Order: sequence, then C-alpha cells, then structure tokens
Amino acid sequence: MAEATLGQLAARFGLVLRGDPDVPVHAVATLRDAAPGTVTFLANPRYRRYLGSTRAAAVIVDESAAGECTVAALISKNPYAAYARIAAWLHPEPVAVAGVHASAVVDPSARIAPSAHIAALVVIEAGAEVGERAVIGAGCVLGAGASIGEDTRLAARVTLYRGVRIGRRCIVHSGAVLGADGFGIAQDVDGWVKVPQLGSVVVGDDVEIGANTTIDRGAIEDTVIEDDVKLDNQIQVAHNVRIGAHTAIAGCVGISGSTTIGRRCMIGGGVGIAGHLEIADNVAVLGMSLVSRSLTKPGIYSASVPAIEAGDWRRVVARLRHLDDMYDRVRALEGHDKVSDPEHS
Amino acid sequence: MAEATLGQLAARFGLVLRGDPDVPVHAVATLRDAAPGTVTFLANPRYRRYLGSTRAAAVIVDESAAGECTVAALISKNPYAAYARIAAWLHPEPVAVAGVHASAVVDPSARIAPSAHIAALVVIEAGAEVGERAVIGAGCVLGAGASIGEDTRLAARVTLYRGVRIGRRCIVHSGAVLGADGFGIAQDVDGWVKVPQLGSVVVGDDVEIGANTTIDRGAIEDTVIEDDVKLDNQIQVAHNVRIGAHTAIAGCVGISGSTTIGRRCMIGGGVGIAGHLEIADNVAVLGMSLVSRSLTKPGIYSASVPAIEAGDWRRVVARLRHLDDMYDRVRALEGHDKVSDPEHS
Amino acid sequence: MAEATLGQLAARFGLVLRGDPDVPVHAVATLRDAAPGTVTFLANPRYRRYLGSTRAAAVIVDESAAGECTVAALISKNPYAAYARIAAWLHPEPVAVAGVHASAVVDPSARIAPSAHIAALVVIEAGAEVGERAVIGAGCVLGAGASIGEDTRLAARVTLYRGVRIGRRCIVHSGAVLGADGFGIAQDVDGWVKVPQLGSVVVGDDVEIGANTTIDRGAIEDTVIEDDVKLDNQIQVAHNVRIGAHTAIAGCVGISGSTTIGRRCMIGGGVGIAGHLEIADNVAVLGMSLVSRSLTKPGIYSASVPAIEAGDWRRVVARLRHLDDMYDRVRALEGHDKVSDPEHS
Repeated sequence: MAEATLGQLAARFGLVLRGDPDVPVHAVATLRDAAPGTVTFLANPRYRRYLGSTRAAAVIVDESAAGECTVAALISKNPYAAYARIAAWLHPEPVAVAGVHASAVVDPSARIAPSAHIAALVVIEAGAEVGERAVIGAGCVLGAGASIGEDTRLAARVTLYRGVRIGRRCIVHSGAVLGADGFGIAQDVDGWVKVPQLGSVVVGDDVEIGANTTIDRGAIEDTVIEDDVKLDNQIQVAHNVRIGAHTAIAGCVGISGSTTIGRRCMIGGGVGIAGHLEIADNVAVLGMSLVSRSLTKPGIYSASVPAIEAGDWRRVVARLRHLDDMYDRVRALEGHDKVSDPEHS
Repeated sequence: MAEATLGQLAARFGLVLRGDPDVPVHAVATLRDAAPGTVTFLANPRYRRYLGSTRAAAVIVDESAAGECTVAALISKNPYAAYARIAAWLHPEPVAVAGVHASAVVDPSARIAPSAHIAALVVIEAGAEVGERAVIGAGCVLGAGASIGEDTRLAARVTLYRGVRIGRRCIVHSGAVLGADGFGIAQDVDGWVKVPQLGSVVVGDDVEIGANTTIDRGAIEDTVIEDDVKLDNQIQVAHNVRIGAHTAIAGCVGISGSTTIGRRCMIGGGVGIAGHLEIADNVAVLGMSLVSRSLTKPGIYSASVPAIEAGDWRRVVARLRHLDDMYDRVRALEGHDKVSDPEHS
Repeated sequence: MAEATLGQLAARFGLVLRGDPDVPVHAVATLRDAAPGTVTFLANPRYRRYLGSTRAAAVIVDESAAGECTVAALISKNPYAAYARIAAWLHPEPVAVAGVHASAVVDPSARIAPSAHIAALVVIEAGAEVGERAVIGAGCVLGAGASIGEDTRLAARVTLYRGVRIGRRCIVHSGAVLGADGFGIAQDVDGWVKVPQLGSVVVGDDVEIGANTTIDRGAIEDTVIEDDVKLDNQIQVAHNVRIGAHTAIAGCVGISGSTTIGRRCMIGGGVGIAGHLEIADNVAVLGMSLVSRSLTKPGIYSASVPAIEAGDWRRVVARLRHLDDMYDRVRALEGHDKVSDPEHS
C-alpha cells in the first residue's frame, strides 16, 4: 500500500479538495464502513444516506453532493473513475519478478521477453511470443504461435489455443479459453460432419476477459475483440463474432456465430444474442433478454420479465398461452370479423 | 465398498426395519434396476410404480409407502437423507494418502498440514495454508495467502486467487475459480477505467461448489458464502454477493454484484438475479426466472414460461407486443376513456 | 496445407465440376473475401449476393445456384458438408508425435497406447487407459480408471474424474469437466446431506464437447452421451441425463438431472431443460426457451421473446402482470360470469 495526503491526491488526480490538505490516507474503504485514514467515494445514489456518518478521511464526490459531506471532500465530475484511479494508486498490483519458473515447459522456439514473468507449470508451445512485462500465471497453456502483448497479465490456468493473439495491457482471468473450435457442423445423411475451424482469435489492447469465459476461433476468418472491450465471467463468444471497442458485457451472456456488436454497447447479464446479426453502436440490452434480430439504432432494448409470486405468475402464463384467442374475442366485441384481420398470421 | 446386514443399517441409521435383519447388503441401487444384495429408496413419487417389482434386498421408505413394499422396508421420516447417509457409508470415498507429490510446486512459506494430500502438479504460492486431512487435487493453483480448512477437498484443476479462504469439510469441483476480479469498471470520456478489486472471497464450512462455477472477489469488502451453501455447476457469483447459510443454487445461475441472498433459499437453474438486491430467507425462485427487485417475503417466485409449439408461440409473441393496445381497446369497450387511466404510463 | 486441382477435388469428393479441372487450389476462403487459388461455398442464402463477384477458383454450390456462379462450380446436393470435407482435406490437423512428454505424471498402472500423444504436464492416474493415436493436450487430468478411445483428442486442460469413459474419434475442448459429482443433496432438519454420486459418465464415439462444458457423473447409474452428439461450449449436463445419438446442442444450455433427450434433436443456445423429462427424437427447441414438460412429439418448440425498445417493453410487462384481470374483463364484456369460467384456477 502507498500513502498520501489529501492534498497530494487532489494534485495528482486533478480534484478539488475541500478540507485539510495535510491529512494522510493509506487505503480505500466503503462509505459505510470506512475507518479513519481511508478515502471513500459516492457514486451510487442509494448509498448517499451514509454520507453524513462516514468516518473516512475524505469522500470523492461530485459537486452536487459535496455540501452534504461532513468530512473532507475530493470533488470530481466523475467520482467513480477518480476513485478507481486513486484505489489503483494506493493499492498497487504486486510486482511480478521477471523470469521463467523452472517448472514451466517452454518450447525453445518460443520468444519470451526478458522482463516477462512465466509462473510455475506454464506450458508455452512452439513459436509463441510473450511481450515485455507480461505476466503468465501458473498453469497457463499458450498454444503454438500464440502471442501476448506487452504488460498483459494472464491469471492462473488460462488456455490459448494455437495462433491466438492478445494485445497490450489486457487482463485474462482463470479458466478463460480462447481459440477453441467454433461450433461448426454440417448435417449429412448419416450424421454430422465437422467443419474445420481455420481462423483464430484476435484481441485488441486494454481488454479484460473474465473467468471461464470462452471465445471461439473463427471458421475461416478471425473472431475479433476490439480495444477496451470488457467481458465479465462465463461469457460465450462464438466463432466469427466481432465486438466493437469500449463495449462492456456482463456475465453469462452468449453471443452466437458471425454476429457483429458495435462500439460502446452495454450488454446485461444472461443476455442471448442470435447469430448473423448486426448490433449498432451505443446499444444497451437489459439483462436476461434475447436479441434475435439486428438492432440498427442506438437505444435500450429489453425482453426481460421480473419474477413475481409463483401462483400469480401461473395464472399469467395460462392466459398468455391463449393471448391470440383473447385478441380475437376483443375484435369480435368491437364488431370486427376475425378473418379480415390483416395482422393475423 | 463396505458390507452390512439390514439389522446393522437400521441400528446405525436409526431406522425401523420391517424384514429379516440378517440379510446382507453391499451397495445401493435404483428401485427399478436393483440387484439382490442392494438397498434402494423411494423419495420421488414418480418412481412408486417400481416399488412392487424391485429386486433390492430392502427399500428405504417413509411410513406411508412401507405397506406397498414387497421386500424388506427400512422406514424413515426422511428416506432421501437416510439413503444419502447409507450410500456414503456403503461407498466410502477413496482415502487420499498424506503427503505432497514430488511434482507439486509449493512455496517454502506455505503451511501444509502433515495429514493433507497435495496431488501432482499442484501450485501453492507464498503463505498459503492447507488444513489437516485436506485434499488438493491435481493441477490446482492456490494463490498467495489462500487458506483451505480441515477435511476440505478440492478436485483437480481448481483455482483460488490470492487470499481466498475456504472453511472446513467443503468440496470444490474442477474448473471452479474463486477470487477472480469482480467486474468493476468506471466509464470515463475516453474508455473504461478498471476499478481495483481489493476484497477477497470467504467460504464457510460444509459448502459444496460445482464444476466451473466462478465466485469473484469483493471490490473493497469480501464476497461471502456462508456455511452449508450448496452451489451447482457453472454458477456466476459476482463481487460483494453474500449467500446465506443452507441456501442451495442450481446450475447456470448468475448473481450480480452486491446482492444478498438469505438463508435456506432455493434458486432454480438458469435464474438471473440483478445487483444490489436483498433476497429474504426461505425464498424459492423457479428455474430460468429473472429477479430484478428485492424479494422481502418468503415464498415462491417465478417468471418462467414453458416452451410450446413454435407456431403457436409465434402468434402469442405477435400479440404480446401489442398488449398495451389490447388493454386500451378493452377499456374502450368498457366505456372508459384511455386518457383517464391512471395506471397507463 | 495440401494442394489439389478442381478435377481432383471433384473426383475425390464425388462432386460435379463445371469449369476447368486443371485449376489448382490450396486453401478454403469465404465467398466474399476469397483470393485466387481458393475454394469457397454457398450454403446460407444470405451470402448469395456475393456469388457473382467472388474471386475464388471455385464455389461449392447446389444445382440451383450453380447457374449464377461466374467462376468454376463444384456441385453438391449438400454444399456445406462437401465444403467441410474439402476444408479438412486441404487443411489437415497438425500431426501429434507419439509418446509421453517428460513432464507428464503418469501412474505406472495406466495403459497408454504406443501411438498416443501425451503432452506436457498431463496427469494420468492409476488404471487409466488411452487408446491408439489419441491426443491428450497439455495440462489434462485423467482420473483413476478413466478411459479414452482410439483417435480421440483432448485439447489442453480437460478434466476427467475417475472412471469416465470416452469413445473413439471424439474431441473434447479445453476446460471441459466430465464426471464431477451431480448436484445431489437431501434436506434434513439441520441442513443438507450430500448424496454420494456413484455412477460415472459414458461418452460414445464421434462426440464433440465444447470448451468449459460440464457433464456430471450419475448418482447411481451413468450419465450417457450417445454417438455423434455435438455439444457446444459452456453447456451443463446434470447427473443421469441421457442425450441421444446425433443430437446437437448449442452453447450455454442447461439440462437438469435424469432428463432423457432423444436422437437427432437440435437444442438452441441458452435453453434450459428441467429434470426428469423425456424429449422425443427430432425435437428442436429455439434459443433461450425453457422446457419444463416432456415433449413427446417431434416438432419445433419455443418460449423465446425477442427484445424490443425498453420503454415499449416496460408497458407490455405492466399489462402482462394483469393479464388474468384483462381476461376476466373480456369475459364480462362478452356477458359471461367470471365464476362460471372452468379454466380459471
């Protein structure tokens, strides 16, 4: 942990300080449970009720909430981003020592930068490359010809199939699998024929990939994850998908083959996206929804239904099944003839 | 496998025996396919039809079904729990030999109990602790300072990030990842800023965690799994979630950040739970439902819709889209003015 | 890569060639981006617009599209399957060298066929078997008594628990876990009792299993995956499930315990299937649907709702909650008495 005064933090991170600049802080904390000597933040309005009683040395807030602050305020237009930077500075990542652990199995043709850290029991196959200051966690497997950019960190037990390329400053979490075969099968008279998956996976810079997320290699061309994409855990990205820069995707999302997702999209947890679609830039999809058509306009989309008491819901479902009949009955009450309804199919 | 007479089983497990106490049994079996010398059980009423024809030596049943039993009956108020205990006794786990496999990479500062079993190619980093009789399966990675309680078993290829703490008598299955960074990102003008994930994961006693389940470390405080929680495979538990004691969660559930789930809850497969919610004790959620609001009362909740023939369903969906219009038309038929409807938003 | 003339391809794969048989090809390509010297295909009608402008040496097409082809045509009744076979022939898998890597930990009682390839840091426990020409990727763990048939390939970091049996010519992708304990727990007064999972997992021939897919061992009998089943990534198959031959299942599907799925079924991505059900042969289920009852007839089933603009959807959900009331109001308008409705429950 680092230590700083509030005045130093304000100067370093471009914040306005209301309070004593000489107060030292050494850690971050939550608004509710902060101890003296810590700095905290207010970003989610639901925690505003703790603002008056926090014991933190200072709170990172926006201008509108600064007045309610009974301790020192570090004022930012974007308190959450300011908090993120201060937290990273007060709590730096442990430094990995350069070098290859004696138990790692590294093919002589692989090129490992001198400043890279290769942990215990890593396997690096022929022709793979690891850039400067990259960290390859224990038990990772880098297939033949895979490449890892500078300052990228793989946590323990990440798998890259042959030829997968990851850019700079990325983070990949444990259990992630990049470059497995896409689900390509052709139906023939006596069963399935496997369609070879000949493309690869290309990941840009500043991408984070969550634990146990899978990104399949392309069938012919590559699956592409552009710069600054953020993927949570247990996401499935099928072959030939392209995810645009700055898009963030929450856990348990499944994206089917050959779909293109635009830039700066936000996809909620558990969403399913069908194949061969185009999703425009700046689209948000609410959690647990299905996207089965291209979304050509920015906006927020949803098909999610919140759970209610099961007995009430059972009655809804019983009626839902007969919704088309109900529609016909309403039309009949209105004096329309069912057959004349052009929308009926 | 152990062997016992029916009389011994009745005595050991506190059951009432109707039948010959000297009949030996050596294994468990299903009601339908039991061979002589085995003991079986009836817990699910759909299998009651096999009760009259089973060839088992004895059936574990409750009082109400004992009369239909044509072989010996071991009578219990809770036949399934009695079966579970008898099966564990007749089919004990293979005993793991104490000691550290020569191929394991164990940091000198780690503390490994003498009776613990560390399998091949395990990595244990600095300061980690493994309790008495614990079993660490092949290829596991225990990050710096992680700790494993007494009698806890990790199957092959489990990953614990630094500082993750697991209690006693737990079971963690292959591919599970505990302590990866939570999905914390702050939006800034030119992209995402990573929010450091500084908490850890704390797992109580008697917890089981399924294959490829992921439990993220907390952002500031810890993610907490209380005693006797049972998690199936491929569950995603986000940062700062708390799951109350005795709660059971089926496969493929996703729980978003900072949500608290009560004690003795039952969450069905594929459920999604949004973030920052409070779920009361004794809540059940039916499979594939979305929970997007706090559930403050015990009860059964659902939003699941069973699949029907696709052509019929397509008509339902077409009408569903226009449900608000249909409501207005019903109100018009009733003689109401649309504008006067206070519920319309 | 191999190389062939169009005439050789036509002869080897039983296709009708319209064009110069002496033109050489060395690779496959997409219709849109093909370079000279490549062969491509048309299977999905949405790409037909590229047929007139492709630069490929030849296109694999069916008879109906051959006329539009401005380059050579390789005519097949099933262009996609023909493409798959040609692609596999032009781009053969890298050959794995027979032998056991020095870093692998193989129990002396395991039987490894001389032509098998065991990669770095594999663990093979007592009594396991690996068939001729099988490939076991880096970091795999084969539990005691597990068996792998001839020509089966495990990618890196696959886990088989004790006793799991896989047939011939299968492919299992990284992170897959076969044979973890099924989710068997019995509720007792003071908490859960674990139900021992005593069965195993049996996988037939020609099965492909995707990355991070989990298949649990049976409670008493085995979980069974029949021949030529194709499973995509992140699928959860619970204990005692049986999946019939030639069935294909897309990513993120969850199948609950003791359900039987028929032959030649097609299950879309993200589908959830409840436990103890029977799904007939030739059933298709559309993506993101829930199957909560047995489906006894072949056909296509769905409960999926495509996302729409969130504001519009919110109004639908508000009405959906009160669908039962709306039904009553329609019946009142029709002059029915609510109480007399036999369907109302």
